[in-house]
Amino acid sequence: MEIESKVSVFGHMSRCFCTGYKRLRNKVIGVLNHMKAVAEEDPRRVIHSIKMGLALSLISIVYYFNPFYDGFGVSAMWAVLTVVVVFEFTVGATLGKGLNRGIATCIAGALGIAAHHLAGFAGDTAEPVLLGFFVFVLATTASFSRFFPGIKARYDYGVLIFILTFSLVSVSGYRVEKIIELAHQRLSTILIGSFTCVFISVFVCPVWAGEELHKLIALNMEKIADFLEGFGGELFDNNKEHSKDDKSVLQRYKSVLNSKTTEETMANFARWEPKHGSFKFRHPWKQYLKIGAVTRECAYRVDALNGYLNSNVQAPHEFKTKIQEKCTKISVESGKALRELALGITTMTHTNAADEHILNANIYTEELKETLKTSVLANTSLLQVIPVTTVASLLIEITICTEKIAESVYELGRLVKFKTTVDSSMKTIDNSIVTLDKPNIVHLPPVSKNDGDHFVVIISGLPLIMDTGVKVHESVIDII
Amino acid sequence: MEIESKVSVFGHMSRCFCTGYKRLRNKVIGVLNHMKAVAEEDPRRVIHSIKMGLALSLISIVYYFNPFYDGFGVSAMWAVLTVVVVFEFTVGATLGKGLNRGIATCIAGALGIAAHHLAGFAGDTAEPVLLGFFVFVLATTASFSRFFPGIKARYDYGVLIFILTFSLVSVSGYRVEKIIELAHQRLSTILIGSFTCVFISVFVCPVWAGEELHKLIALNMEKIADFLEGFGGELFDNNKEHSKDDKSVLQRYKSVLNSKTTEETMANFARWEPKHGSFKFRHPWKQYLKIGAVTRECAYRVDALNGYLNSNVQAPHEFKTKIQEKCTKISVESGKALRELALGITTMTHTNAADEHILNANIYTEELKETLKTSVLANTSLLQVIPVTTVASLLIEITICTEKIAESVYELGRLVKFKTTVDSSMKTIDNSIVTLDKPNIVHLPPVSKNDGDHFVVIISGLPLIMDTGVKVHESVIDII
Repeated sequence: MEIESKVSVFGHMSRCFCTGYKRLRNKVIGVLNHMKAVAEEDPRRVIHSIKMGLALSLISIVYYFNPFYDGFGVSAMWAVLTVVVVFEFTVGATLGKGLNRGIATCIAGALGIAAHHLAGFAGDTAEPVLLGFFVFVLATTASFSRFFPGIKARYDYGVLIFILTFSLVSVSGYRVEKIIELAHQRLSTILIGSFTCVFISVFVCPVWAGEELHKLIALNMEKIADFLEGFGGELFDNNKEHSKDDKSVLQRYKSVLNSKTTEETMANFARWEPKHGSFKFRHPWKQYLKIGAVTRECAYRVDALNGYLNSNVQAPHEFKTKIQEKCTKISVESGKALRELALGITTMTHTNAADEHILNANIYTEELKETLKTSVLANTSLLQVIPVTTVASLLIEITICTEKIAESVYELGRLVKFKTTVDSSMKTIDNSIVTLDKPNIVHLPPVSKNDGDHFVVIISGLPLIMDTGVKVHESVIDII
Repeated sequence: MEIESKVSVFGHMSRCFCTGYKRLRNKVIGVLNHMKAVAEEDPRRVIHSIKMGLALSLISIVYYFNPFYDGFGVSAMWAVLTVVVVFEFTVGATLGKGLNRGIATCIAGALGIAAHHLAGFAGDTAEPVLLGFFVFVLATTASFSRFFPGIKARYDYGVLIFILTFSLVSVSGYRVEKIIELAHQRLSTILIGSFTCVFISVFVCPVWAGEELHKLIALNMEKIADFLEGFGGELFDNNKEHSKDDKSVLQRYKSVLNSKTTEETMANFARWEPKHGSFKFRHPWKQYLKIGAVTRECAYRVDALNGYLNSNVQAPHEFKTKIQEKCTKISVESGKALRELALGITTMTHTNAADEHILNANIYTEELKETLKTSVLANTSLLQVIPVTTVASLLIEITICTEKIAESVYELGRLVKFKTTVDSSMKTIDNSIVTLDKPNIVHLPPVSKNDGDHFVVIISGLPLIMDTGVKVHESVIDII
């Protein structure tokens, strides 16, 4: 009996051990898979982690070698602290934090010493009261300034360090006699720490916030282009057998809806960055935010459009086919225009490839309007055509959004001076009837007025359909 | 001449001084006005700044009084540092940072001492190499873990402090002999700092992140309600003489479009907070994010709708009036439903006031569909009615969104156990034909089937229009 029970206890324990081991193994495998996924999503994350390790190990030398250590004393740990706190994923963020930390330490250190001296005149009893008062006033004011959006965006960390340093210097002043020496030590160690961070950040596989913003803006436009190009094919298509990949490509635009915060953060970091690649120090980062804003406006419309994917329309076949054809063309052309604009941003060149697509989209829009205008719906109720008209209406809005995006991209092109590779054939209609001398100036030839027709002109890369009443043959529009 | 030139120089200088003074005065006045505006936007900002000043002045006492100072030595400055870094606007953020800092310091301190001991066995030459290696491995791994969304959201600061403390303790270990004492000092000062922050944060005019999130979610719904209720009046109204105030009320919904980040941050902070007011420790904050997500979905539709404000519709007057009336009713009822739901969240009560409005909106939607179904458009082109049909379509989508919002709000009500004040008249149709025993269970009486009619039933507070074929008199629907 005793042996039996011992065996059973042993068996139970080994079973427990086995299940525990299996669970642990599964857990570890789960975490490792998760790590792999995070690393594969952006391999630079691994590089960043290694850079951080490198920077910290390097700065530990400061702490380790005797000559340094004797020079800096306990202050040497400020170098370690600086590296841990300042080192960020992008160069801009690291530079911004480093500069904020350095400059705030200088100003607050000087003010702290001044406060200490000033309080010294007040006598032994009043000194601590006065110092406490100074700390209170400065901490309160500085804390309040962090609520200012402008300060919050760029100098938040600096204000924090300002409060910290001022408190430490002014209050510690009457403890440590050699206050100037202390301030000097602290500043040197912070500079060493910041310099190490900035050096590694800039020279070892740098990640530039500006470049990231640049890519993000182009990528967001591409995501919407993916939707619009794909939407054309899926429109009113009840045959819902599509692969999951197709669907996920179409749904990529969703991330654009909430990209505002990321864009603003990136732009704030980018403003700290020096010239890198094609980006100058004072690159017009704000223009990227403008492009982002209009792209997002477009994404809202796309989100509304998304609800009509594969919607069931019970309209007459002929009418449906006609509208579907036009809508598909508008959607695809708008998508292509966005893709060209995104390509233009990526390669930093100004082509008129997008204009052509916008022009086509506008022509199809006009045709769609014409079709809608002339459609007779004797046997079809308004309710049945709601999906059709809503899609048409949203697509018309999207073409307007696309024009806005193009406008803001061209504005960026002007500010940054993109390389221009404009196709000269775009400048003339019907063999030099219209000529473009300078951007924004269009010479229209004297023509007879015949109402009701449209005349298409490209002004500074932006197509406008003007009701000028100028007679243009359809064949001419097709040539454009 | 000399006197003249002197006078002119003096005159010039005084003019310069005057302009400089005026400019400076204007600048100062500008800054003061800006400060006033920031303070008026949320007066708690001023209180927070004063609290920060108070906490720092208090902790300076630790640094000042001799007994403390002798006990803690240089470590006392860690208390100042902790206050500056940990003190945040909301209780949740302060608590989160304080706990992260405290726990991370404990774990990293212990690991640092262990690493120091382990390296000690390796001999004098290998020790620094081994310590450097430890720092590198831990800093790299910990930095990488910050890219995990779950860790980033809640433990980002903790990981930072972990890296910092481990580096400081393990590397400084071979300098300072009394490493245990140092660790003990550092921990006590950090605890004192954190405790001061948390104490002031919780007991002096606390700002709870949970409450803020709660209010924000309700406010966002109200903003959309403002638009929908106002939109009804402005719909297809070409008389554009509206006061600026009206317009700005209508445009308030715009902030909802980009509130995702704020909501997520608040929810993360709120999870650290203990029971306060009506909120328990494990309050279902995630449900608020779900409500926020569907509210935002609704806001995207509202943004699309906003484009049709005051749009010029050239449709037959009778048709236009009919559609406008229905659209206005749907818009206003959806708005009222959202306002009731927001009120329900604010007061934490579950009423069926919103259901009534949703029901009305659904009834008007059905009527609108009927109108659209029967409308004959012999003389009107499809193009002219696009604004009408698009608005109708968007409003139908908004009623669906409103239902989704209601569903998620009721889910929150169930999770939190809102007080219920359900009007008993809602539970019966035509004197106890339908009875609700428990939520979600509806007893339908045996009735004859007559196709084509609608039967309206409230299931768990959510109105559904079911094509059950049950004959219900119109008067009954009106009673509901």
